[in-house]
Amino acid sequence: MTIVLYDLPSKAKGNAWSPAAWKVRYVLNFKGIPYKTEWVEYPDIENLWKKLGIAHTSLKADGRPHYTVPAIYDPSTGVYLSESLQIAEYLEKTYPDTPIFPHNTLGLQWPFNDVFTSNLSSLWNFITPAICWKLNPTSEVYFRATREESFGQTMENLFPKGDAAVAEWAKLREALGKVDVLYSKTSGPYLMGDTLSWADIVVAGYLTMIKVIFGEDSQEWRNISTWHDGRWKKCIDNLKKYETVV
Amino acid sequence: MTIVLYDLPSKAKGNAWSPAAWKVRYVLNFKGIPYKTEWVEYPDIENLWKKLGIAHTSLKADGRPHYTVPAIYDPSTGVYLSESLQIAEYLEKTYPDTPIFPHNTLGLQWPFNDVFTSNLSSLWNFITPAICWKLNPTSEVYFRATREESFGQTMENLFPKGDAAVAEWAKLREALGKVDVLYSKTSGPYLMGDTLSWADIVVAGYLTMIKVIFGEDSQEWRNISTWHDGRWKKCIDNLKKYETVV
Repeated sequence: MTIVLYDLPSKAKGNAWSPAAWKVRYVLNFKGIPYKTEWVEYPDIENLWKKLGIAHTSLKADGRPHYTVPAIYDPSTGVYLSESLQIAEYLEKTYPDTPIFPHNTLGLQWPFNDVFTSNLSSLWNFITPAICWKLNPTSEVYFRATREESFGQTMENLFPKGDAAVAEWAKLREALGKVDVLYSKTSGPYLMGDTLSWADIVVAGYLTMIKVIFGEDSQEWRNISTWHDGRWKKCIDNLKKYETVV
Repeated sequence: MTIVLYDLPSKAKGNAWSPAAWKVRYVLNFKGIPYKTEWVEYPDIENLWKKLGIAHTSLKADGRPHYTVPAIYDPSTGVYLSESLQIAEYLEKTYPDTPIFPHNTLGLQWPFNDVFTSNLSSLWNFITPAICWKLNPTSEVYFRATREESFGQTMENLFPKGDAAVAEWAKLREALGKVDVLYSKTSGPYLMGDTLSWADIVVAGYLTMIKVIFGEDSQEWRNISTWHDGRWKKCIDNLKKYETVV
């Protein structure tokens, strides 16, 4: 039986870019679970989720439910589920072989997720406009309207330029440096040494977004690739065999 | 050879109260490393650290070095070291039996430390004055002066009362609820199931501070003991055999 992974399409090379969906895709590929991606444009998420009975993941500022990608449908259990960590927990329980939370580390992996994303705060002013420019027209209209409302400025204005850009990139580099220190604590390629786990998938999910959205040949990706002795490129390369998009 | 653990004394029952020093004490007891506590009052820390060659752990707001408890001296290696996580790393490398970072989890345990303490933000307005009131006179004068300057009010005013106290305790309970969720992810008594690790020592270090400073019979500790099905009392009780103060 083939799991359905609901993900957001784009015009970027390779199509898949959502970091949260990438986390789930890495888990599915790592566990060798057959799956098929179903691409959903932003304006279609809410109606489709309601039709399928997929729960919202949070509430918007105005109190309305927020329906988000990724989601999965597992025909072998009849389960529909959203939110990447919830999905990861479900997949670990249902398909426990090749664990992503080895040695009972779920309670440690979850805080790592929070700490890692909090280190990315300087990234959003760059990546949000860059995502907008890479979406298909129907998603682009929706994304631009909602993000320009929440940021209070146009995507083009939001994108840092000149000295501001240099300062923001430096902040991002410094923040990633803290994660590099964590990686440097083991001799293996993964955060848990020789054992791949959810933490590496979280890191690879966000880095893959950066690589896909800016493009592999972009100055942005070339910069990040050189930071911290090439740590971030290695983090993606270590998961190369699990990056197939089907 | 006996390690020296430098810790802060108090008038509280059991004497030891510093959460950071408790973390190190738990590690020493858990690993079965012989040690002896040397008690240092607040105003004596800086001069003693300088004399022993122990590094400062951070910089104060005015840029001067900040010397902190705990510190250790290991006569078998000649090492003097401060800062609880650095000490824990050193002890793990030097005395690797009964690991506190099992299965290469140091890179995961470290972020847990940050996430756990960030959940305690509501605690400090209660515990800072309560610590002050339990210190020996020479430390009390020093602690009161420095803390009243940084909080901008007297210890007596800082301590929440009435509705403010109820609201702050509710916030602390809610924040600890997030950590309770992490614990609930495994069936064992520890965050990593049946395996005790640094994360449990971090949690027990702060809870022991609360229990010692307010007192085991206090309303404060009785309240916390009942939260989340007794999770926090259990967290300390699970480490009972490692709480000997020598």
